[in-house]
Amino acid sequence: MWGMIATWRMAVEGLTEGANTLEKGGSAEEAIVKAISEVEDFPYYKSVGYGGLPNEEMEVELDAAYMNGTTLDFGAVGAVKDFKNPIKIARRLSVEKANNFLVGVGAEKFAHKEGFERKTMLTDRAKIHYKNRVHKLNQQENELTPYSGHDTVGMVALDQQGLMTAGTSTSGLFMKKPGRVGDSPVIGSGLYVDSEIGGATATGLGEDLMKGMVSYEIVSFMREGFSPQEACEKAVAKLDQKLKERRGKAGDLSVVAMDKKGNYGVASNIEGFSFAVVTETKAPKVYIVDKIKEGKCHYEKATQEWLENYMATRTAPLEEEWKK
Amino acid sequence: MWGMIATWRMAVEGLTEGANTLEKGGSAEEAIVKAISEVEDFPYYKSVGYGGLPNEEMEVELDAAYMNGTTLDFGAVGAVKDFKNPIKIARRLSVEKANNFLVGVGAEKFAHKEGFERKTMLTDRAKIHYKNRVHKLNQQENELTPYSGHDTVGMVALDQQGLMTAGTSTSGLFMKKPGRVGDSPVIGSGLYVDSEIGGATATGLGEDLMKGMVSYEIVSFMREGFSPQEACEKAVAKLDQKLKERRGKAGDLSVVAMDKKGNYGVASNIEGFSFAVVTETKAPKVYIVDKIKEGKCHYEKATQEWLENYMATRTAPLEEEWKK
Repeated sequence: MWGMIATWRMAVEGLTEGANTLEKGGSAEEAIVKAISEVEDFPYYKSVGYGGLPNEEMEVELDAAYMNGTTLDFGAVGAVKDFKNPIKIARRLSVEKANNFLVGVGAEKFAHKEGFERKTMLTDRAKIHYKNRVHKLNQQENELTPYSGHDTVGMVALDQQGLMTAGTSTSGLFMKKPGRVGDSPVIGSGLYVDSEIGGATATGLGEDLMKGMVSYEIVSFMREGFSPQEACEKAVAKLDQKLKERRGKAGDLSVVAMDKKGNYGVASNIEGFSFAVVTETKAPKVYIVDKIKEGKCHYEKATQEWLENYMATRTAPLEEEWKK
Repeated sequence: MWGMIATWRMAVEGLTEGANTLEKGGSAEEAIVKAISEVEDFPYYKSVGYGGLPNEEMEVELDAAYMNGTTLDFGAVGAVKDFKNPIKIARRLSVEKANNFLVGVGAEKFAHKEGFERKTMLTDRAKIHYKNRVHKLNQQENELTPYSGHDTVGMVALDQQGLMTAGTSTSGLFMKKPGRVGDSPVIGSGLYVDSEIGGATATGLGEDLMKGMVSYEIVSFMREGFSPQEACEKAVAKLDQKLKERRGKAGDLSVVAMDKKGNYGVASNIEGFSFAVVTETKAPKVYIVDKIKEGKCHYEKATQEWLENYMATRTAPLEEEWKK
């Protein structure tokens, strides 16, 4: 068996490429790096890689992580600017003996010395989003609420040799503070994988996801014998409830998981979370997830209309509102 | 009941100050920030705050985190240079709505804007350590092994109102790469606390501690009903074994924990780990921990001789070996 699962609709093209690798017997490492790089390269996904939305100083700062579920090696970068594929830097860091998690200027220095490809990651489109937001804030005299646009791509892959890997990549919260690191590069929160059990990855409000080590929690539930679906539901329901009890509210929490047999699961505490999955027996497809209700999460195949609408929205011309 | 536990002998003076706060009914937040600041300020502890050992470019880069076990608020900084008390910046970040984990230049910008006290954190003594190490490496033509000097101070506190907090502060691995972040600022790995259960904090090789979310794991075991001592032993034994199975070896792993009743526990997979503890019924004392054996960890009170020897070693004049 082989398979791959990923957060959000945007992952499906990358996932399809990754599946080609896995189908031919390629490794889960190669597949996941290829798949995530594809998402990073696509300019219209505004929360990952090229075209990602900037921080409050209009700088695009990127987080990414990679983990090998057999050796438990991991690599991660936080708040990195202007490298084309943060996931590749993370993968490279995973084979270091120590210094596996590098941030900011230090991470850029490492990537520079290793010859990783530079790229101006701020696009004209992202600048329009930024300026529109600033304009809106000025008009409304509102407080900055940096909660939108946190759609991290996270993936879990299983290859024919039984290796499981996980990876994440994101530009983080739109309008975040410079240097802000979310859950995505944090092992246990943004991702976790153990080839003997399975793996999980998360997207949503990083600051809340980190309060519950949600990816590790899912893998722990799978270790106890719960199915990936049950494990995802339990982890999201538990953290959502705990956050509401202690803080009066819970940020967005969405997760996907796959076990070592290629079974998969998903859960979310919001409406409209989507995911993509492929296995040896199922072609790559996008599904839409309902908000968790009484501990259960249902999902169904995205309609053609939904898929077309999704891409049309992403690629539609942007109005420069501050010029009006 | 009130109490406080901390990693390493170096914490005892800070712990004693923190205990004064707790005894008078002060908060676990105030106590832990005061206690960790004290350790940060002491120049002879070469792995925390002022006097901490530098990275491979002879820069002191500091990590710290603070967590509130009732609200689950946390704040953390990674790879921050030249601020006197990183723990105070972490505490300040914990009350932000988002952007709770800041690294590098962004974290410094935040601290600067908030008016946190600047201080040149590289001491002459730390420079001698650095130059001696470089000299030794040149002589031996050895590979750089950045595994020594990773003695993070981590603390868990319980106040009379039932609030529990946890905090960490470290200069990280001696000779680490610029921008390297260890487990200390990572919630779940370096620290975790839940006022309804208890808290834990870790020290050792961050890259290995992060593979097992060891602090979160200990709190999870306490939630299941294990005593703090059992929870620490189970978490260290489990992670040590997993690392050895998957990687052939395990880095240093040492942990301390306290539950909401003031019961405490400790475990380590190395010889010579020390910790300090104080509760309503026990004066502040330092204990020496034996390496875990058959799943059990024993400890005994440090002798006067050991304590004197510890401080004499830390404060002894350093030879400038590269001048010989």
